[in-house]
Order: sequence, then structure tokens, then C-alpha cells
Amino acid sequence: MTKAGQLEEGNASKVPMPAGSNKGISVMDFVSRLVGIAGTLGAAIAMGTNEETLPFFTRFVSFSAEYDDFRAFRLFVIVNAIASAYFVLTIPLSIVHIMRSAARGSRILLIISDTVMLALVTAGASAAASIIYLAHNGNNSTNWLPVCQQYGDFCQAASGSLIGSFGAVVVFLLIILLGAIALSRQAKRHVV
Amino acid sequence: MTKAGQLEEGNASKVPMPAGSNKGISVMDFVSRLVGIAGTLGAAIAMGTNEETLPFFTRFVSFSAEYDDFRAFRLFVIVNAIASAYFVLTIPLSIVHIMRSAARGSRILLIISDTVMLALVTAGASAAASIIYLAHNGNNSTNWLPVCQQYGDFCQAASGSLIGSFGAVVVFLLIILLGAIALSRQAKRHVV
Repeated sequence: MTKAGQLEEGNASKVPMPAGSNKGISVMDFVSRLVGIAGTLGAAIAMGTNEETLPFFTRFVSFSAEYDDFRAFRLFVIVNAIASAYFVLTIPLSIVHIMRSAARGSRILLIISDTVMLALVTAGASAAASIIYLAHNGNNSTNWLPVCQQYGDFCQAASGSLIGSFGAVVVFLLIILLGAIALSRQAKRHVV
Repeated sequence: MTKAGQLEEGNASKVPMPAGSNKGISVMDFVSRLVGIAGTLGAAIAMGTNEETLPFFTRFVSFSAEYDDFRAFRLFVIVNAIASAYFVLTIPLSIVHIMRSAARGSRILLIISDTVMLALVTAGASAAASIIYLAHNGNNSTNWLPVCQQYGDFCQAASGSLIGSFGAVVVFLLIILLGAIALSRQAKRHVV
């Protein structure tokens, strides 16, 4: 442990501090963020490189589909790229939390920014999911035909990339939960 | 540190609160939840009663549209109804927080459940938004035609109901922020 860490603990443990009670939580937070990077980066790349050109003529006007044709998919790529960068940027803070269990302000900051990112990623993933659902099933009222028969690979890649993104949503829920638990333990610890 | 703060420290949390330090936050939380009820309930009703039958024949196979034809819209109604009920159920807890600023456990519980609801409502609103965008603009690659020329009123009502739902998203972000701030103040107060 670093000198700063010892000092920190020496200070906080006027009240008996259950040794490293928040350390396990912080390690889980760290690991979750790594999983989050993999999920969001994978989702962004899978969707961002997704295009399919049909090898034959159909009655459809255009013969190729790429993610950029759909606003929802473009949003999906942007949001997942942002979330991926966000995870990378918060890794150092997560490491600090492993070393300094008593950190409070930064934990609260992290909870709030995690919450905003949760909303962003959820929005991107759901918007894409509803388009993919439509592509699979079509809609009678509006006469939108299911296009996954034609664009099979495109649909499959798009559906696959959803997994990474919804995985990231779960990660965000988990790390917000972990953050709140860590905070609650600190609050308890300081009360006699 | 203020005098009230010192008093607080001396006797931990059994002592009556330092006047209104978290009371303002709790009142804002309460008011925000009322706004949230209005937003989600309005959104659910506006979307749930949304249907339009066209008075003329077109080349389309079916001549009416209602929210139930779209999975995303059905999800939207369900999610907003749930969120509305959730807001109603948490109002009493919010009132308790106004009276007992020191409540910690319930605040953390509320932050966590608010976060889950935030994800739910965001998912519903975004899924609906991406369908509405498609209805307005259509998509060339898949040959999905914009249908808002035909279903004008339907589109307008659906778009309108989005406002209430995204308003609720903002409310959730706000009350999570307020909860985190209230917690951080408590934590500070208990530290020497």
C-alpha cells in the first residue's frame, strides 16, 4: 500500500474500519469496466463495419444496406464509441478507488456520470433494437416489409452487436449499484 | 464547519438534523416525482389511446394504425405506466425524506431503483422515438416509406407522447443526482 493510502486509512479508521470492506467492491467495479470496454467497443465496431450489398436485383430500389442508412444505427455506433472511451477514462479513477477505499466525492461523481452514460447507452441500444425488430418482423399497418430475408448478414451482424451494447447496460447498472453500496458502507462506517 | 454541523458530529445521527441541509433537496425530489407522474401518465395515456383509421382506400393493405400494431409503442405504454406507478409508490418515501433528512438506507435504495427505472423508461422512449423517426422519414435501403403523410394524427400524437416520456427521463436523472448529493452531504457530515 502507498504512503498516501496508509495515511488515509489511519485517518478514517478512528472508527473501526472493516479492513478493505470496499476493496472487493472496487475490484469488481474495475473488472466490470473492463467488460464494459469490450462490450461497447465490440458493439461499435460490429455495427460500424456492418454493410451488405445484395448480389442480385430485387424489386427494391436500392441493393445495399449499411449502418449509416439508419439514424438509429448511427446513434448506436456513436453512443457505444463514447461509452467505450468513457470506460477507458474512468479506469484510472476505478484503480484509485481500489487503493483508497475512503474516497467519497469521486465515487459520487462516478455514480452520476455512470447514470448519464447508462441513459445514453440504453437509448442507443433500444433505438437500434426496435429497428432490428422491425427488420425481422416488418409491420402490416405501415406496410413495412421484413427485410432480413434479403439482408440476412446485415441483420445478423446488427443483432449481434446489440448483445455487446445491452451487456454494457448491465455493466452500468452493476457499477452504479456497487458505487451506491460502497457509499452506504462509508456512511455507516462514520456513524457511531 | 457550521455550528449545526459540529452539533451533528458530536452526537451522530440521532440528533435532529442541521436545519434543512437536505430538506431543500428532498422537497425538490418530491416535486420532481410529481412532475414525473404527470409526464409518464400523460405519455402512457396519449400513446395508449392513439389510433387512426384512414377514411379512404389506399394501396396499403390495412387502413388503420394503432399503438398496439407496434411492439415498440406497446413497450412504451407499458413502461410509462410502470414508471407512473413507481413514482406514485415512491412519493411516501420522498415525504419521509423531507421529514427525516438523515435517512440513508432508503436513499440508497431509492437511487438504485430510480436507476433501474431510468434505464426502463429510456429504453421505451428511445425505441418509440426510432419508430416515429422512421414513420416521419422512411428509409430507402429497406424501402420503408414514410407513413406520416397518411397517418398524420397518429404520428403527431405519438410524437407528442414522447415529450412526456423524455421529460420523465430528465426527472429520473435529476432525482438520482439529488439523491447522490444528499448522500454525499450526509457522508461529509459524519466525517471528522
